[in-house]
Amino acid sequence: MTRAGMRGISRRRLLGWTGAGAALAGAGAVAGFAAGESAEAPVDPSGGVVPFRGVHQAGIVTPAQDRLHFVALDLTTTDRAAVISLLKRWTTAAERMTAGAEAAPGGAVQRNPEAPPSDTGEALGLPAAALTITFGIGGSLLDKLGIPRPPELADLPPFQGDQLDPALSGGDLCLQACANDPQVAVHAVRNLIRTGFGTTTVRWSQLGFGRTSSTSTTQQTHRNLFGFKDGTNNLKAEDTALLDEHVWVPPAQGPAWLAGGTYLVARRIRMHVETWDRTSLAEQESLTGRTKGEGAPIGQAREFDLPDLGPGSPIGADAHIRLASAQNNGGARILRRGYNFVDGSDGFGHLDAGLFFVAFMRDPHRQFVPMQSQLARQDKMMEYIEHTGSAVFAVPPGLGDGAYWGRTVLEG
Amino acid sequence: MTRAGMRGISRRRLLGWTGAGAALAGAGAVAGFAAGESAEAPVDPSGGVVPFRGVHQAGIVTPAQDRLHFVALDLTTTDRAAVISLLKRWTTAAERMTAGAEAAPGGAVQRNPEAPPSDTGEALGLPAAALTITFGIGGSLLDKLGIPRPPELADLPPFQGDQLDPALSGGDLCLQACANDPQVAVHAVRNLIRTGFGTTTVRWSQLGFGRTSSTSTTQQTHRNLFGFKDGTNNLKAEDTALLDEHVWVPPAQGPAWLAGGTYLVARRIRMHVETWDRTSLAEQESLTGRTKGEGAPIGQAREFDLPDLGPGSPIGADAHIRLASAQNNGGARILRRGYNFVDGSDGFGHLDAGLFFVAFMRDPHRQFVPMQSQLARQDKMMEYIEHTGSAVFAVPPGLGDGAYWGRTVLEG
Repeated sequence: MTRAGMRGISRRRLLGWTGAGAALAGAGAVAGFAAGESAEAPVDPSGGVVPFRGVHQAGIVTPAQDRLHFVALDLTTTDRAAVISLLKRWTTAAERMTAGAEAAPGGAVQRNPEAPPSDTGEALGLPAAALTITFGIGGSLLDKLGIPRPPELADLPPFQGDQLDPALSGGDLCLQACANDPQVAVHAVRNLIRTGFGTTTVRWSQLGFGRTSSTSTTQQTHRNLFGFKDGTNNLKAEDTALLDEHVWVPPAQGPAWLAGGTYLVARRIRMHVETWDRTSLAEQESLTGRTKGEGAPIGQAREFDLPDLGPGSPIGADAHIRLASAQNNGGARILRRGYNFVDGSDGFGHLDAGLFFVAFMRDPHRQFVPMQSQLARQDKMMEYIEHTGSAVFAVPPGLGDGAYWGRTVLEG
Repeated sequence: MTRAGMRGISRRRLLGWTGAGAALAGAGAVAGFAAGESAEAPVDPSGGVVPFRGVHQAGIVTPAQDRLHFVALDLTTTDRAAVISLLKRWTTAAERMTAGAEAAPGGAVQRNPEAPPSDTGEALGLPAAALTITFGIGGSLLDKLGIPRPPELADLPPFQGDQLDPALSGGDLCLQACANDPQVAVHAVRNLIRTGFGTTTVRWSQLGFGRTSSTSTTQQTHRNLFGFKDGTNNLKAEDTALLDEHVWVPPAQGPAWLAGGTYLVARRIRMHVETWDRTSLAEQESLTGRTKGEGAPIGQAREFDLPDLGPGSPIGADAHIRLASAQNNGGARILRRGYNFVDGSDGFGHLDAGLFFVAFMRDPHRQFVPMQSQLARQDKMMEYIEHTGSAVFAVPPGLGDGAYWGRTVLEG
């Protein structure tokens, strides 16, 4: 799995986690993790392989790929043994797919003609395309299996203006597949759905393109469907101290099974692009707090110039970047990893388009909730958007050799 | 617009069309076409520019790009001058976007802060990504403007098993944007929709990925969501004699405004992938008539080996490739250019996935209708699929310098 250009995980960092392992019920989850493998490695845009196992799950600080297929599933059983059996099979399948097994001609097609093919086949011959599959657990799964919910996994409160569709919200489990080829991401999700028949059923799914946040200093900032650069100020894979502070759940926070993991907040945000497009450039820039072309904070020249949020600042009190800033949220920051979407049209002559917001953080209720409460109340951009789906998942830590998704919580 | 690797249009071919122009009311549409420009040139997968003007519209025999955004629109007016005005503005905008105007930093952002930006901006900084925009006219537009419908543009008859949703069918106009970056394709469609406000409204739209047909011998065959290579036997850009025979409308066929154009048939085909995935490999291969791994016709070894459709053939009477073959359809062939789609899930625990079938031909009623009638009645694959949307459009010929989309029909 090693290849030129991959950054080895530092020995200090690996030892740091192994040292912390004594405090973890799931210490085995990081044992066997080989030096030289890291989920944080930069990826080849076309056919790179991102290591499946590591201290953290891949697909979080992995440089954001260009395409997403996200699915939320519900359990159809409360039999813990059946769930464990599924998670073992999912782990095996996910590891095989992220390694690019489909690139071997005919390699994945079942040879027994009397049985259904072991793989659905549409990715045969395609490279791994930097595929990552990230696994999350909803609070409702813990409820069903009689496992205590960590307080951080409490349901989100309603926010002003929410127009949530229950059919696009929640879920017992989630799988986030990211890749640089949509066919590879769709193939991965579909085969895991198929593996889950009899144990899980699809609750909702979402395709995305054109990542709206960069998660590495090696990436350029992309644009959302309002035409603005999005996620300029995002946390980056290289900010390891900030990730430890804001993203990874430390052992002291608990629960033990989530140490080294994180929480995922997903929001499907419909954007009324037709209305936005009739708004003047000055108004768009004022609402955002950045210029449209360069993406610089208002009053500054370049994208990465720091915004002036002090007294007399040219950035308005209701500008999006001010309301969402760490300064305005008690220092709270999150790791964003969202995607644009267009789901056809809405039947009223408009595109059903927007931003599928995905963010990782160590406590949704201390990080996302205060920020979103403020945005929902004050952000004038809310006039142009509508939150139509919402979900929160606990994302367990990465897997050591032989470990499977969810082991720390189901056998902990 | 010329660059290394582009094939110049042959002088003979250019003169052939110019010679035919004397018979065309819209001869001006091909005048001014510069030697060295061709819509049939192979494209750079990342950032290539496909010439906008030429004998034929781009996006038909252009080597199929990987992503699609297709939109059908309805007129909200019957004022011919308003329609002409829109088509002129569309042509200007489409030509600008296909040339990759967004790659110039900040180039497309309107400088007047009091006005809405002239471009929505989400493609700023992105290369052309081989963008093509192909324009089509529905029979209902001709009816509304009092222009006679060519008989080839009569509505398709109902086919056995059709489950058509009127909200996903028909349309006065269509725009097919193809590119190697979905953000570029979506940007193009969105800006044209925006330009149409007050004259057109969105009827339906469809995103697609993972082209399911190659349209050039330089391309490999991709796979559909049944996991099979699709379009192995497709017409190719290089088969110019076959394209003249099956795709391009000859002057003698009429109407004059469509000489050098073609017809586009679109079918949204929902595929019940979950049911298919439970079918044995032998059954899947028998229904298809090809092997799953290599894509060879049953009884042959390699993908491009000719199928044995004679007496005693191992390919069953109901196999898809037999029913769809030219031999079985009086020699009729079509140029396929479809895409896979996943539109989230269906609310019943399944993916809403399938194939957005797009095909070009000179007469839908002599080519598509007999073939589809036969497939609908006999193809056992129909048990796994459902046609949920349908449309037919006339696709005018390519544009010479200064010409605009639809001129031949609206001013003819």
